[in-house]
Amino acid sequence: MPHRLLEQHRPLLDRALQTIADRSYWSAFAESPSPRAYGENAAETGRAAFEAHLGHAFELSQPGQCAWHKDENSPYGQALGISYPVSDPQALVDAAMQAMPAWQALGAEGRVGVCLEILQRLNRQSFEIAHAVMMTSGQGWMMAFQAGAPHAQDRGLEAVAYAWREMSFIPAESTWEKPQGKHPALVMRKHFEIVGRGVAVVIGCATFPTWNTYPGVFAALATGNPVILKPHSQVVLPAAITVRTIRAVLEENGLNPDLVSLCLPPSREAACDLYTHPDVHSIDYTGGNVFGKWLLDHCRQAQVYAELAGVNSIVVDSTDDYQGMLRNLAFTLSLYSGQMCTTSQALIIPAKGIATNDGHKTYEQVCQDLAQAVDHFLSKPETAHAVLGAIQSDETLARIEKAASGAMGQVILAPRSLTNPDFPQARVRTPVLLACDATDAGFFTQEQFGPISFLVRAADTQAALALVEDLTRQHGALTMAIYSTNDKVIDAATQVSWRAKVALSINLTGGVFVNQSAAYSDFHGTGGNPAGNASYADSAFVANRFRVVQRRQHV
Amino acid sequence: MPHRLLEQHRPLLDRALQTIADRSYWSAFAESPSPRAYGENAAETGRAAFEAHLGHAFELSQPGQCAWHKDENSPYGQALGISYPVSDPQALVDAAMQAMPAWQALGAEGRVGVCLEILQRLNRQSFEIAHAVMMTSGQGWMMAFQAGAPHAQDRGLEAVAYAWREMSFIPAESTWEKPQGKHPALVMRKHFEIVGRGVAVVIGCATFPTWNTYPGVFAALATGNPVILKPHSQVVLPAAITVRTIRAVLEENGLNPDLVSLCLPPSREAACDLYTHPDVHSIDYTGGNVFGKWLLDHCRQAQVYAELAGVNSIVVDSTDDYQGMLRNLAFTLSLYSGQMCTTSQALIIPAKGIATNDGHKTYEQVCQDLAQAVDHFLSKPETAHAVLGAIQSDETLARIEKAASGAMGQVILAPRSLTNPDFPQARVRTPVLLACDATDAGFFTQEQFGPISFLVRAADTQAALALVEDLTRQHGALTMAIYSTNDKVIDAATQVSWRAKVALSINLTGGVFVNQSAAYSDFHGTGGNPAGNASYADSAFVANRFRVVQRRQHV
Repeated sequence: MPHRLLEQHRPLLDRALQTIADRSYWSAFAESPSPRAYGENAAETGRAAFEAHLGHAFELSQPGQCAWHKDENSPYGQALGISYPVSDPQALVDAAMQAMPAWQALGAEGRVGVCLEILQRLNRQSFEIAHAVMMTSGQGWMMAFQAGAPHAQDRGLEAVAYAWREMSFIPAESTWEKPQGKHPALVMRKHFEIVGRGVAVVIGCATFPTWNTYPGVFAALATGNPVILKPHSQVVLPAAITVRTIRAVLEENGLNPDLVSLCLPPSREAACDLYTHPDVHSIDYTGGNVFGKWLLDHCRQAQVYAELAGVNSIVVDSTDDYQGMLRNLAFTLSLYSGQMCTTSQALIIPAKGIATNDGHKTYEQVCQDLAQAVDHFLSKPETAHAVLGAIQSDETLARIEKAASGAMGQVILAPRSLTNPDFPQARVRTPVLLACDATDAGFFTQEQFGPISFLVRAADTQAALALVEDLTRQHGALTMAIYSTNDKVIDAATQVSWRAKVALSINLTGGVFVNQSAAYSDFHGTGGNPAGNASYADSAFVANRFRVVQRRQHV
Repeated sequence: MPHRLLEQHRPLLDRALQTIADRSYWSAFAESPSPRAYGENAAETGRAAFEAHLGHAFELSQPGQCAWHKDENSPYGQALGISYPVSDPQALVDAAMQAMPAWQALGAEGRVGVCLEILQRLNRQSFEIAHAVMMTSGQGWMMAFQAGAPHAQDRGLEAVAYAWREMSFIPAESTWEKPQGKHPALVMRKHFEIVGRGVAVVIGCATFPTWNTYPGVFAALATGNPVILKPHSQVVLPAAITVRTIRAVLEENGLNPDLVSLCLPPSREAACDLYTHPDVHSIDYTGGNVFGKWLLDHCRQAQVYAELAGVNSIVVDSTDDYQGMLRNLAFTLSLYSGQMCTTSQALIIPAKGIATNDGHKTYEQVCQDLAQAVDHFLSKPETAHAVLGAIQSDETLARIEKAASGAMGQVILAPRSLTNPDFPQARVRTPVLLACDATDAGFFTQEQFGPISFLVRAADTQAALALVEDLTRQHGALTMAIYSTNDKVIDAATQVSWRAKVALSINLTGGVFVNQSAAYSDFHGTGGNPAGNASYADSAFVANRFRVVQRRQHV
């Protein structure tokens, strides 16, 4: 049955394999929430499915349940009232280990077939999951749909494709025949078994509960590992829906559903015991540096794939499309109120200003023009709410207030509080822009998660590039951008991107934004600077999640 | 020029790629030291090249040289009298970093071409290197030739093939074209640059100075990293010759030879500073657990690929070729006096004895028969010296004495001191066999490196398998073997090998030995138990040694 699933979904896998190799554009899952793509009633059915969760206990029939978790808050101010099963992590680990041998025995074909079926099923739940993502993370609707559903599914499929490619290199059997001159050859029959490392724990973040976890979940699963998904304590529903669907597909295929479970640990201590459990062999984590460092320092029994904080930079040297640049930047800085690990925090501008198609612009002028561009872009409330979403955490709200107070730099654009007519309790803030000098270290050199960006005045472009290199090597970054009409400057920026190991976007003035990366084509992060030790997705992201155990005997 | 090298050696690479995929038998380099394979004068020329090193300073023209290292001793008692450059590690790191950008710029094709040329050149030096390996490690001649030269070169080529396969998935460029409905498509040009992680340090061991270092050296080099090779302080010559050849090939191809250097640090402190240096991003290490643990604990800036100690086990349940089994085991236990990380240490036998084609054998009888088989196998001095070689370290010598004293278990076969007529000072010892009970924990559960093996009496086969699983999961193992005529027992052993993640050899009674693994076909280690966190060689061994840095811009 699972093998038939591979056959059934094989075209999808093959296309994903082709696309990770040629890195062209492709998406397996329609990013438009249109009836044509998802069916006439999909939007309504999905909303109803989401609403049916509200105020209810989310049953998962997992082992070791000992309490209910009710700690979920919506940044939109909506009462969710959902309770989730709290399970003893040891019971989840034990159950996962019990489910593992049958999952191994299925082989790469069977496992990948099941993973593809799960992704298809999750795709059919895109509206339900999008509502869940929106109401828990605070993303705007369109982003919640795209990033939360089809794009997350694409990243999951991408991880499956990498896992398949690596596993498919391992033949199940081989005959080894070594000539011995005049004597009979030595002949051995060898078998090669792909064996998962052990329990994989995937720790979700509050802002991208599916997009940032699906790569780890599917990479681990496909390579033979059970998965325990630990969502952010306040952003649970998208993970709970995902786990329920996975468990259902497993069960339908005669597999033990405890292979995948949702973990809301009864205490912080129990959570730490899970992360350091000897049967846990990988941890995927997206989030802050303090806990990330704790994981890296303490979970020495596991391979930790960590995406941590960083300081993403843009160097503005010159442009032949000043308005296009401003529009592009205004969108980037506004999207989901900058609550993305890829949002640019430091925009570095030469002190003497920049050359543009609209003439020379002083540093001060660029600051003012960008502030105006953001203001203008958000002037229509519909646009503003659709793009900004809501502020996910109290900490981000506090940071915005601190930035607005002038404590982090000169306020060029003050944040505004907007009232969302659909969700009057939603905490909505427009971006803060701060001006500071490259020598004013302290604030722009640390991640200020949220809609807080610095317009940093550097001596010149060379100094700006040196600053980006230093920032990225010291503090990490997932993205870097350069605006320049000068090929030599672009070359210099390219060299910086190589040394600092950060993806570079050049002269984005249209509909592609530095903070967005496309599955199958863009590597999300390089894994080569302090912002993360892994990339979504590449061979390194999957190759160490399984081991090959061989056996050999004479024929 | 380097690209022409790839063209020139392409058939070699293609065959290696094919063989790592089908895992059949193949060797790129002739394992027989015959004139037909290596040329009429190769043996003499190689010996002369080796002898020319004796008593001389080994010049390498490396930066930062501050002293000479003269700490080399031959287990054969021969005075070597060679001095090697001691360099300030910081100078080597600085020079390596300077050499790195040009190496990156060469691209995968250029780098792999150069690596293949280096391997071919090392192959031509096989006799010289074999003498160097023999006289420093204490291996017998044939083993020093095979494992020290062609087999090590094969492992190096294998690593290059894996590196090539992974790198060749990364297109240099792509066009990304995303349809926008009625609007013009978004079109981007993307470039993908393979960038090495940084300086790779490869730490050699005393027993396999080339075989255990070539995989790391070539995996790191091919993926764009400079390499600093730190040999064991008493086993330097094979590494020195290797480094000199690599530097020569680099220089001939217009590359900075400081990309690869030999490091004999001026002090232990300087060595630790090197291992924890922020520019060092990978460390390959083979050796003891204490220092291995130090590396894993302290070199957090680097990916550490470690092959550590382990306890390799064999379960003897039954056999239909008792004499073949005894002969096979006698060879395994004798080869290089058991100074291999793959030698079996614990042979576990049911208390009630075993069924064989020669009738039932009691536990005691099996012990006696194996002791006799070893004695018989080593009865001819030529064979004994060729197989045993010499004892590499004082510590191993001390362990043998302790074992012989009865302090570790009942002595079934006492070690003998032999005099090698060619090298009267050589320290030669025959194996020690000790009998003990499975409950006598303490000695057989820790690696007793050298020719010390335990014939462990277990309650029954099931208990024996459980013991192997426990030993391997707790202490690690690179090899496991089972002798049984019962398919159910072999299945159970297979399950144990999966859970403990150790390669299993079944019923070896002929010319293949549990302690030998064949490049391209056998994975050396699984990387999945405490004996090592990596395998030679697989995708995981190479995929995380480079990162992909992309740039994208609108067309």
